[in-house]
This record gives sequence, structure tokens and C-alpha cells, in this order.
Amino acid sequence: MLSAEILAVGTELLLGSIANTNAQMISQSLSGLGVNVFWHTVVGDNPGRLEEALDIARKRANVLITVGGLGPTYDDLTKEVVCRAFGRRLTFRGDIAEELRGLYETVFRVPMPENNLRQAELPEGCTVFDNPVGTAPGCAFYEDGVHVLMLPGPPEECEAMLHRHAEPYLRSLSDEVLLSRDILCFGIGESAVDQLLRDKMSQMKNPSLATYAKPAEMCLRVTAKAKTCDEAEAMLAPVVDEVKKALGDVIYGVDVSSLEEACKKLLQEQKLSLATAESCTGGLLAQRMTELPGVSAVYRGGVVAYWTSVKADVLGVPWALLDEFGAVSEPVARAMAEGVCAVTGAELGISVTGVAGPDADERGNPVGLVYLGLCTPKGTFCRKLTLGRRKRERIRALAANTGLDMVRRFLTGLPLEPTREK
Amino acid sequence: MLSAEILAVGTELLLGSIANTNAQMISQSLSGLGVNVFWHTVVGDNPGRLEEALDIARKRANVLITVGGLGPTYDDLTKEVVCRAFGRRLTFRGDIAEELRGLYETVFRVPMPENNLRQAELPEGCTVFDNPVGTAPGCAFYEDGVHVLMLPGPPEECEAMLHRHAEPYLRSLSDEVLLSRDILCFGIGESAVDQLLRDKMSQMKNPSLATYAKPAEMCLRVTAKAKTCDEAEAMLAPVVDEVKKALGDVIYGVDVSSLEEACKKLLQEQKLSLATAESCTGGLLAQRMTELPGVSAVYRGGVVAYWTSVKADVLGVPWALLDEFGAVSEPVARAMAEGVCAVTGAELGISVTGVAGPDADERGNPVGLVYLGLCTPKGTFCRKLTLGRRKRERIRALAANTGLDMVRRFLTGLPLEPTREK
Repeated sequence: MLSAEILAVGTELLLGSIANTNAQMISQSLSGLGVNVFWHTVVGDNPGRLEEALDIARKRANVLITVGGLGPTYDDLTKEVVCRAFGRRLTFRGDIAEELRGLYETVFRVPMPENNLRQAELPEGCTVFDNPVGTAPGCAFYEDGVHVLMLPGPPEECEAMLHRHAEPYLRSLSDEVLLSRDILCFGIGESAVDQLLRDKMSQMKNPSLATYAKPAEMCLRVTAKAKTCDEAEAMLAPVVDEVKKALGDVIYGVDVSSLEEACKKLLQEQKLSLATAESCTGGLLAQRMTELPGVSAVYRGGVVAYWTSVKADVLGVPWALLDEFGAVSEPVARAMAEGVCAVTGAELGISVTGVAGPDADERGNPVGLVYLGLCTPKGTFCRKLTLGRRKRERIRALAANTGLDMVRRFLTGLPLEPTREK
Repeated sequence: MLSAEILAVGTELLLGSIANTNAQMISQSLSGLGVNVFWHTVVGDNPGRLEEALDIARKRANVLITVGGLGPTYDDLTKEVVCRAFGRRLTFRGDIAEELRGLYETVFRVPMPENNLRQAELPEGCTVFDNPVGTAPGCAFYEDGVHVLMLPGPPEECEAMLHRHAEPYLRSLSDEVLLSRDILCFGIGESAVDQLLRDKMSQMKNPSLATYAKPAEMCLRVTAKAKTCDEAEAMLAPVVDEVKKALGDVIYGVDVSSLEEACKKLLQEQKLSLATAESCTGGLLAQRMTELPGVSAVYRGGVVAYWTSVKADVLGVPWALLDEFGAVSEPVARAMAEGVCAVTGAELGISVTGVAGPDADERGNPVGLVYLGLCTPKGTFCRKLTLGRRKRERIRALAANTGLDMVRRFLTGLPLEPTREK
């Protein structure tokens, strides 16, 4: 079994100047190749601590991927320290030096700085990974039971070399494939999922089942390991069905990227268009819809009616309703949804009005009280949420997700509220 | 000297489902507190490997911060394993259980799932860190020469607990103060800042000067280390003045959280209100304004005019203009800004119309072409941006920032475009 450690080298990671996105990218790739990643480590540009990290890693992993420290400057020391730790000589490769010099002369059209020759030094007998988007080559070698791969730190160089060289190298070592399905849910909490599926999740090893909290929603990932893709597919299907049966209509999609993506697909299929009328979410629904490329086919636009006068003047909500019930009320939510359909001509209109906080509104409505309206050719519907004293952005995110979920539920003929308890 | 290791626990990190942004956030914070971070480690939800990681960490760090694994489910095992490793009893805290139960009954209004009681178990004699945005408390204790801090994994919970509890806890361990000023800029690139201030940045140690790229903008941080706050303040002031002189009017604020925050303050001071009319940014400007608590005093609302018909029907842009010049044009940007002032009654109106991609529009306007309009009591102004083939979200972010910067520049009497080269 291949078990990997990803060892990133770079003081900028320890200072928090950048996140370790290389480790994430490599982990995703390895998980797709069926290589287990058990450890990520980050050390600074410090030879002593790097050597210490290598000593620990070689004892617990048989695939060790270092990232960073391959460049030409004095603090790029990964190759020297790795060679020392694994007892390999670092040798000067004339062929690579010539390539580098050629690159400078014909492509960059400047003389090569002499310190760049350090990039032509590589562990004796290694497999060279050429760098499709930069100058520092990477490499791989096998020593003392460990496959050592060295990749460059700049994310685009790391990614290019990973796909072009490291993946084929690792694939040749393994004969398994790993496949996943993401089951996306809204309207159910992590502990409820845990109670429904706990036994299953703890017992299942292959396929495995795990939960991931996303902002204001939930993802369940089923992963199967097999000899072939077909075999993995066949293992996944019954588990996905079982989860679907257990969770019911809180599932909004499988392998869909977001609720708005699910809504976009449904609107396209049914040749309908949507408009938004937002008060407390202040454009968040509109913004999320328009993040999707090509959404203009189904999303017409919307109104951010933050002031009461904008609800009346732009959306045509009657002043009588606003005076009698206040802006945060079911009648106003309905009138906003109907109003935005009227002014934009959309078949579906979703509205949100509520108190996002930090304070109660002038009528004393508490933080977290939200009304949503959905205007459709079959009538106008309404939902009331009491989200409690959560943070402002959390209330906005939950309200926006609920609005999108109402659209999704309407278009799939489901009741507009989840039928099970949260 | 305090030297820290950040140990994140979570299989989702090893699968590459998420990046370890918590480690980045904590590293930034610790670097601001003068605590050296020498190691990041990630392990999965596996008790054996977590114990192994703790054994290694306690030998090389005197501040150990664990992240994740504090929740109610069976794979949340950080507290148990940490207690075992450090020889502390894990005790059930009735007071915390009561708080949790109260939260469920009065706020969530559902009975608390019994597995949630696991969150009330904490190491004996620890300092409890309550969770301002979730349910799982964190904690800190000192054992065998090591300060152990446990923070929750969901990034917003981790961040809130870091600022509210972990930072004061760590600050109390050190006898130096570290003070920073963030100088925020828009309209200048990192390499231009580097060219203007490179010598200064490389020579200065205390105060130090560093750049941080934020999405579509730039932050310069000046940091001073001293015995007292007054001393640190006195060291910072002349450096801030010097940077202001060097960069000029691309600076939109010092210690301001965002361009929209700067706009909100100016609008409040001048008792003016703003409205937005957005096409390609699709509600992003509105959403960013309304993320600010209390913004309803100065932000009236807006229109997301994604379809051309919405530009005409809701904003009153004349069809003649739309037919002659197309939706992505200076006359339409002007008419949108004026239209949104007319329908909302706001004194200032900002509009955005452009091509965010991935494809050119039906008139052949290229990706990255954006017009912005600003309607004011002194007339309507316009800016044209050619942002090139950048990613969709990057074009939207740059366009939104430019719109906010136009408002900021108008309200401070500056020319609407930066006077120096980018």
C-alpha cells in the first residue's frame, strides 16, 4: 500500500503569507490515484528543521513528496538536504545546464544569471521532471524503501509538473483507482446526519462515507477503491442510493457544485427565468446566481430593496402593507416576490426580507427573523425562518440558501420545506 | 522564546477537499504576536497518528495549537487523544452542558441531540474558550513545559475563537507588545509598490514593512515591537507618514477593513446616500455594501440589471441608447447610474456594465471591457476599464473595487482615476 507524506518547504507558509494550496492540490490528485495521504508537514527554509522533518517522514511514509526550495537562490536548499538525508550525491547535469542556458538565450533573450546553474544540480541517478512553466526541474528517486519526489513551490509550476510527471510516475506504482461521489444537502445539520448514518459511516471502509460541512450546507462523500473504474462505479451506486433513501429530499444534488448551479440547471431544462428581490441578503442571491458563467439565459436580474422606500417605489409594494405589517413580514415578502416578477417579466421571483442584525429592527423584530417569498405561475408561497442570534453573514448565507432551495423544491415538485426535522 | 506548532486534525485536509486556511490564519496572527511558528502538521481523524503527531510536537514546540476534532461526532477525537498524551483527565462540565442545552432550547428551538453532550467534556483544570459562533468550546492548558491550545475546525469558529481567546492568552505569555498599522491601497500593483519601497522594505527590521496582496487590492503592514504600546505607536507614526508620501492617493485608508467601509464612513460624514446599478458585477457591489452592519443609514439599495430589458424597464435606460451603443457602453453606464438615482432617490449612484466572460458579448466587446458610471449632484462621470482576459471572478472583483474607489475619490475631492501609473 502506498502511503504518502507531503512536505512543503517555505518560510512564507509559516508566516501565513500564503495558504498551503499545493498540499491540497497534490492531496486531491493522490486521492484520485488511490494513494493514501496520511501527513502534511510544513517547515521553513531552515536546513536543520528540514532534515529533522525528512528523518521523521521517511519512517512513516513510502511516498515522500517535497514541495518548494528548488530555485536558484541561497535559501533554496531542498535538494542539498534531501540528498544528505538519503545518502545520494548531488551531481551537476551538463545537459540540463545547456537546456537552461538555451531557454534564457532564445526565449527570455537575456544572459542567464550564473546562480541559475544551481538548478542543474540533481540527485545522482534520479528521474528528471522537466518544468513546463518555469526553470527549476523536479525529480524522483527510490531509496531505502521510499519514493522521493521533489516538486517546485510556485503553484502553477507545481501543478503543471504534478500532472505531467508526478501522476504518471505514481500511477505506475499502483494498480488501484479511487472514485468519489459528493451528495449535497441543504436543510439538515451535521449532528442529524450523524445520527441517521453514524453506524454506517463508522463501519464502512470501502466504499467509505464521510461528512463535510460547507458554509450553511452539508456534503456527504462516498469513496470507493477498486481495480477498475467500472468496479468502483458499481460499488458506489448502492451506497449513494442508500444515502438518498435515508436523507430524502434535503439532497439537492449529486456532484453538483452549489444550490445555485442546481437551480440554473432546472431553470434551463424548464425554460423559465428567475428574478430576485432582496432586503436583508442585500444582493447576495443575485451575486451568487451571477457567479455562474452563462446564467444570463435564466437569470434576468433583481432589485436590492434595502430601504423601505425602494420596496415601494421600485418593487411596487403597497405603502399600506408596509405601514400595517412592517417591512419584515409575510405580506411584504409576497408583494416583493410578485413585484420583481412584474417589473422584470421573470416567471419566478424569489424575495428575502428579514433582520440580519446585529440589532433588532425598529418594530422589535428579533435578529434572525426572515421571510422568503416565491412568486410562481402557480401562485405565491412564503416561508418564515427564525435563525436566532447568529452572525450577520451566517444569517444572510442561510437565508440565501433557503431561497435557492425553495426554487429548487418548486421546480422539482417537492414541498417547499424539508419534510423531516432538522 | 515562544515557538509554536500548528497541528490540524481532519481527513478532509488530507483528501484535499479543503486547504489548510486555518493554519495560515493562525500563523498570521502568531507572527503579529511575536510568536515564531516553526511547524505545521496535518493528520487525519485517526487516534494513532494524532498521538504520534502530539508526541513529536511536544518535543519541538512550547506552544501547540490543535485545530479541529472538537465536534460531537464519533470522528471528533482531539480532546480524548490530547488528554491521553498529556496525562490529563477529560471531565464532564455540567455548566457547559447547561449552556449548550439552553442554546438549543431557546435559539435553535429543537431538543439537543444527546451526542452533543460530548462537547461539554474538557481537560481537567483547563481555561475554557467559549465559541462565539458555534457550539464546540475550545480550551487551553499548560503541561510539561507546553502551552496546549485547542481550537475548532470550521474556519469561522476558529477565527472567532482565535481573536477572542487564543490571542489574549498568548499575549499574556509574552512581555513585548507588537503593534501594526495596515495601509490599504487600490489602483497600484505589487511590483509598483515593490519598486517604490523595495530598499525601505528590505532594510527595515523594527518597525518592519511588508506587503500583502488582498483580492484585487493591496495592503502594506508596518509592525513595531516594543516594551510598551506608546513606544510602539511612536515608532510606527513616521513610517506610516513616509509610506503615505510615497504612494499618494492610491491609499484609501489606514486600518480600514475594506473600500466599502471607507465609503460608508465618508457617506455618513457627508450625510449622503448611495444606490447601485449592476450588470456584470451582478449584485456584488450591493452585497459588499450590505455586509457592513448599520449600512442602511447610507445605502438605499440597487438594481441588478442583468438582462437588457431590466436596464430599460427598471432603470429607465432609453431603448434608443441600448440599440445604438449596446449595453456595454459609456452612454448606458451613465444612464444606469442616473436611472438608479432617479428610482431610489439616492444622491449618488454607481453603475457597472461590462463583459465578465468567459466569452465576448454579442456585439463583439472583448472580455474585460467594463464601463462604470457615477451619478452625483455635480454631474455624471464615467470610467472605462480594459481588464483583459482575466478570470470571471477577478474581473467582477476589480470592477466592484473600481466602483467603490470612484465613490471614495469623489467624496474626498480627488480625481476619479489614480494620478500615478499602475
